[in-house]
Amino acid sequence: MIRAGIIGSTGYAGAEIARLLTGHKDVEIKWLVSRSYAGQPYEDIFRNLFELIEKDCGDISIREMSRDVDVIFTATPQGYLQGELTGDILDQCRIIDMSADYRIKDVSVYEKWYGIEHHSPELLNEAVYGLTEINREKIRDARLLANPGCFTTCSILTAYPLMKEHLIEKDSIIINALSGVSGAGRGAKVANLFCEVNETAKAYGVTNHRHTPEIEEQLGYAYGSSVTLQFTPHLIPMHRGILATETARLAGNASYEDIKLIFDKYYSNEKFIRVLKKDVCPETRFVEGSNYVDIGFKTDERTGNIIMMGALDNLEKGAASQAVQNFNVMFGFPEEEGIDMIPMVP
Amino acid sequence: MIRAGIIGSTGYAGAEIARLLTGHKDVEIKWLVSRSYAGQPYEDIFRNLFELIEKDCGDISIREMSRDVDVIFTATPQGYLQGELTGDILDQCRIIDMSADYRIKDVSVYEKWYGIEHHSPELLNEAVYGLTEINREKIRDARLLANPGCFTTCSILTAYPLMKEHLIEKDSIIINALSGVSGAGRGAKVANLFCEVNETAKAYGVTNHRHTPEIEEQLGYAYGSSVTLQFTPHLIPMHRGILATETARLAGNASYEDIKLIFDKYYSNEKFIRVLKKDVCPETRFVEGSNYVDIGFKTDERTGNIIMMGALDNLEKGAASQAVQNFNVMFGFPEEEGIDMIPMVP
Amino acid sequence: MIRAGIIGSTGYAGAEIARLLTGHKDVEIKWLVSRSYAGQPYEDIFRNLFELIEKDCGDISIREMSRDVDVIFTATPQGYLQGELTGDILDQCRIIDMSADYRIKDVSVYEKWYGIEHHSPELLNEAVYGLTEINREKIRDARLLANPGCFTTCSILTAYPLMKEHLIEKDSIIINALSGVSGAGRGAKVANLFCEVNETAKAYGVTNHRHTPEIEEQLGYAYGSSVTLQFTPHLIPMHRGILATETARLAGNASYEDIKLIFDKYYSNEKFIRVLKKDVCPETRFVEGSNYVDIGFKTDERTGNIIMMGALDNLEKGAASQAVQNFNVMFGFPEEEGIDMIPMVP
Amino acid sequence: MIRAGIIGSTGYAGAEIARLLTGHKDVEIKWLVSRSYAGQPYEDIFRNLFELIEKDCGDISIREMSRDVDVIFTATPQGYLQGELTGDILDQCRIIDMSADYRIKDVSVYEKWYGIEHHSPELLNEAVYGLTEINREKIRDARLLANPGCFTTCSILTAYPLMKEHLIEKDSIIINALSGVSGAGRGAKVANLFCEVNETAKAYGVTNHRHTPEIEEQLGYAYGSSVTLQFTPHLIPMHRGILATETARLAGNASYEDIKLIFDKYYSNEKFIRVLKKDVCPETRFVEGSNYVDIGFKTDERTGNIIMMGALDNLEKGAASQAVQNFNVMFGFPEEEGIDMIPMVP
Repeated sequence: MIRAGIIGSTGYAGAEIARLLTGHKDVEIKWLVSRSYAGQPYEDIFRNLFELIEKDCGDISIREMSRDVDVIFTATPQGYLQGELTGDILDQCRIIDMSADYRIKDVSVYEKWYGIEHHSPELLNEAVYGLTEINREKIRDARLLANPGCFTTCSILTAYPLMKEHLIEKDSIIINALSGVSGAGRGAKVANLFCEVNETAKAYGVTNHRHTPEIEEQLGYAYGSSVTLQFTPHLIPMHRGILATETARLAGNASYEDIKLIFDKYYSNEKFIRVLKKDVCPETRFVEGSNYVDIGFKTDERTGNIIMMGALDNLEKGAASQAVQNFNVMFGFPEEEGIDMIPMVP
Repeated sequence: MIRAGIIGSTGYAGAEIARLLTGHKDVEIKWLVSRSYAGQPYEDIFRNLFELIEKDCGDISIREMSRDVDVIFTATPQGYLQGELTGDILDQCRIIDMSADYRIKDVSVYEKWYGIEHHSPELLNEAVYGLTEINREKIRDARLLANPGCFTTCSILTAYPLMKEHLIEKDSIIINALSGVSGAGRGAKVANLFCEVNETAKAYGVTNHRHTPEIEEQLGYAYGSSVTLQFTPHLIPMHRGILATETARLAGNASYEDIKLIFDKYYSNEKFIRVLKKDVCPETRFVEGSNYVDIGFKTDERTGNIIMMGALDNLEKGAASQAVQNFNVMFGFPEEEGIDMIPMVP
Repeated sequence: MIRAGIIGSTGYAGAEIARLLTGHKDVEIKWLVSRSYAGQPYEDIFRNLFELIEKDCGDISIREMSRDVDVIFTATPQGYLQGELTGDILDQCRIIDMSADYRIKDVSVYEKWYGIEHHSPELLNEAVYGLTEINREKIRDARLLANPGCFTTCSILTAYPLMKEHLIEKDSIIINALSGVSGAGRGAKVANLFCEVNETAKAYGVTNHRHTPEIEEQLGYAYGSSVTLQFTPHLIPMHRGILATETARLAGNASYEDIKLIFDKYYSNEKFIRVLKKDVCPETRFVEGSNYVDIGFKTDERTGNIIMMGALDNLEKGAASQAVQNFNVMFGFPEEEGIDMIPMVP
Repeated sequence: MIRAGIIGSTGYAGAEIARLLTGHKDVEIKWLVSRSYAGQPYEDIFRNLFELIEKDCGDISIREMSRDVDVIFTATPQGYLQGELTGDILDQCRIIDMSADYRIKDVSVYEKWYGIEHHSPELLNEAVYGLTEINREKIRDARLLANPGCFTTCSILTAYPLMKEHLIEKDSIIINALSGVSGAGRGAKVANLFCEVNETAKAYGVTNHRHTPEIEEQLGYAYGSSVTLQFTPHLIPMHRGILATETARLAGNASYEDIKLIFDKYYSNEKFIRVLKKDVCPETRFVEGSNYVDIGFKTDERTGNIIMMGALDNLEKGAASQAVQNFNVMFGFPEEEGIDMIPMVP
């Protein structure tokens, strides 16, 4: 049994990790850290887990915890982990970080977009970016796993094959993405009240959303040179789901079949990435509650553009289930263990 | 491997059975019957199952199918099965029926509340009412299983222990229940359009909802004599969930502890029935997507009433997962096989 | 022009009053008081009013404000007004209070259910309970108007005629009510986040909701002696709306027509109370955004009960538009001025 | 009093016109045509109008009706009006058409995108495109008013000033738009059931949505030469609202202030178009139920793009209230008569 701890266990992503690990046959949850709920039974906060998790929320430092567990999941605010983490801790246990602290290799980019200083830049180099399907080999041996963001996982996987194969013009990508409200977290903010976000839609973070450089960096690796793109996220009234609609200029005269072949080349052996049938647009409901990413695309002869669309569940493939997928790779378990949920409709 | 067929596989309950059986390690789905979608790939209709069910919808008579499978799940409109079923078919395979056709023992009650003639009343006697926790022993050998309704499962289980032990006045129960929209089915009706049911609430079937006699019959068995009660269902804007609020007059001076003991007597060994902590009211979100029923209660000294509350997922414990639970009992599998999903929040 | 001030103008009820008064041709809004937003343009907070209200939130004592306006609307937490109000202030201006501070005549009942001390019990006697259709005459001259609660307005008006005429057994009423989320206010609480209340339903305040004594007191006046009833509210995922389902024992053998006549006797001349056609159940969507209350009922020969159902918009007839209706009566304007919105569907 | 008839009065747009005209002091509704509901009281279908519209649905030909009324609103499927309309009918009464039949001047474009033959192309020339703020003068004398689509009104008004002034590159516009479900109409289709569209998002009509040529034509007029653009609509779970996010390449080095001046030049005198403050993104909730369009924008130095965002209510400014606005212009009433609703939040 792998002993696991979760820091930030009472946010939505942390709680989803707790739920998934509860159903994982090779994991024992040792610590559920939450400063605000310390001492309270976890099942009193997330009553879906009533009688399933009989443990109180704890409060313990990451250093202490690292001696008691094999892996720590950090579902913590930006800046927390990079302020606490040291090589010593990584000598004790492996870490899967849900924050952005170790996702961006260039510390100046991180500091500019996040507006905070990075306190452990020396660890950036060893951190592995946890897009499982892209970096599987490196993930096996990672001590420090930077789990990707929800918008980024969706945006990158949707464009990856065509960028890798130079089928689209490098700097022409315009991403309009939609997010469910759970992406905004479980903090007590007026802006996320039911009566403030239900029955409405808005763009936010226009021109400056922090997932932009993360998407650009990874698609740049795919393309082979640096990429600039426009990323505009929107908040819409649903619990879960990311839908990324990516419009880009086709680089040549690729037909539907040409493009489909490319997608299949990269994804046909990937259980969790499903390239949909011709003319089918992904819908977030068909991946909700699962680790799947559904991808569709359509070319437009009139405009010379391709519209690529990807859908995933922001709390699963966009956070918790991808974290467990990476955990499985890191610890040598079958990749789907504990995360082969079939999406539930309706 | 048990070979299974589903008739009515493209309604919400039928599709949920298909999804659950896909994840059940001892079942092979042989037939997905749907008259309206015959010949179409099932994965095109329920795209959550894309690449997971690679079978077309079929159209075959129940008689023919009975020779090809071990069990048939009928998720069909009221009246269908009782018009088709014969003892011969039951000699071939076992049937788990989601409709009301064999739930009510008194054929005249059925015909009055449903307004249709019953064509196989001779089979009523052998049909077993599939409230698993109450009728487990009888279910083992059932050839014809009448799977309970969603409102009824919730209403009965919530009141059962106190009725059985005569702690509440027999005819004093007033049930106000809330249902998510999936209970209204997948038919193309204006009344169930998003813009007709979202952001609103209404009572319906007031004084004449068809689940009334089913609840009365079963609670009558529990009490030991016939029961009359008021059942008023409401439709509210959510996908899944039944919440039954049952107000009844306490028969004596039972304290909280007395009542809790009674609930525990019946349910403490039941994995799928959770009696909540003192003063905790159940919420449908905490059972969504699972086979759990959550029950809470509160007594009111001021009025002499008890308010009992039960919550379940109408498509799971109220339909599909209870059907699979009964299937497991009937075929000797562990009761939770394929249905031990942990409710997902949010 | 009547000069008006609103204290608590950035909660949902306060903001709705501001919106309604903006469209009222005889009112000038002088003060929009909000401690938390003081100094900020009101249109920045409620951007529906962009370019329509060009005034900043202010912070001023009720005493000072009373010298500057003709009427003050207080949309403030329980306890605020009774701690501040004096006869002197009422000599300066009239007050329409949205809180419960002056609704309950018996100060001991108030203190027991609200758990706070009342600091101006001497004003309770002169306060007029603002159910416009019931107390219209007294309202004309009121200096201190206690605007009723949302559950209470709905529950009382639905049962009033039959209680007044003794057609139902006095202590047999069981009210199950549903509320939209705006009733929970605009405070930054985890419990009211979109991801905590969407796609779920729960009962709350079971046996001890504070609207209970208010309903009992008013229905007691109607009946002519004190009344005890069971009130169980539920929270459901919609913005606005109260639906009260009231089950009671019929006192005699009244037919549908008898009962309809009684409802018509009290309400057929009331513009804002609509008694629906036979067998029609009210739906909150058909009153949303308006001052209407829709009422339907059905008798059950099987049980001897009547089920009465009322629907209103909790922020309108349940708060703001009834406050303006009372304002109109108090200041001699046509009763529907500024509040004759037609409900909007969908 | 202007006598009005509505054909297609039981769809969402038709019903909204009926509601608005009920509150319009200079209009008498003479006919509410609905084939499917003919003979039924209108208030039984739209119970928000109970006791407010006491008229049955009728079934009468447009030709006959034209002799009985001054204006006909047609909220009918594409193809209906162009198959029925003649110059004779227009001699009798004026027509405001909610369909696309007379919006596109080039009949071959209409026939290609709509896939149907046009039977009255001779009337195309006299039809006036009813974007009130752009074509106000022509509208005054129109006999045949082609009321714009919901996506188109939003998309055009958001980009109009910058296109008119050549501040953005003509063919660089990429529109991603979100729509509430009421835009899909009130037909009984599985695809629009609550359980099919709630809690999910999808793109649809990708590369071939019929509003594309309408937007291109009108923005082409603004720019002075033909325009090609990419339009990708999405369906999201809310009743009402269009949010158009338009990304375009800036043609020069315009600063925020330069661009703001241009927007103000066109819109500062328009009551119903509100250009928001710097960095404020429009939200559909802040225009819901009103005739307003809210517009915001942001430039991105990093990419050289501008992101323009517009929000309106698809059933109001995107359909019914703009129809009434045009009606007011055509018949000489104040432009805001009957449509000066203040958006309601929440």
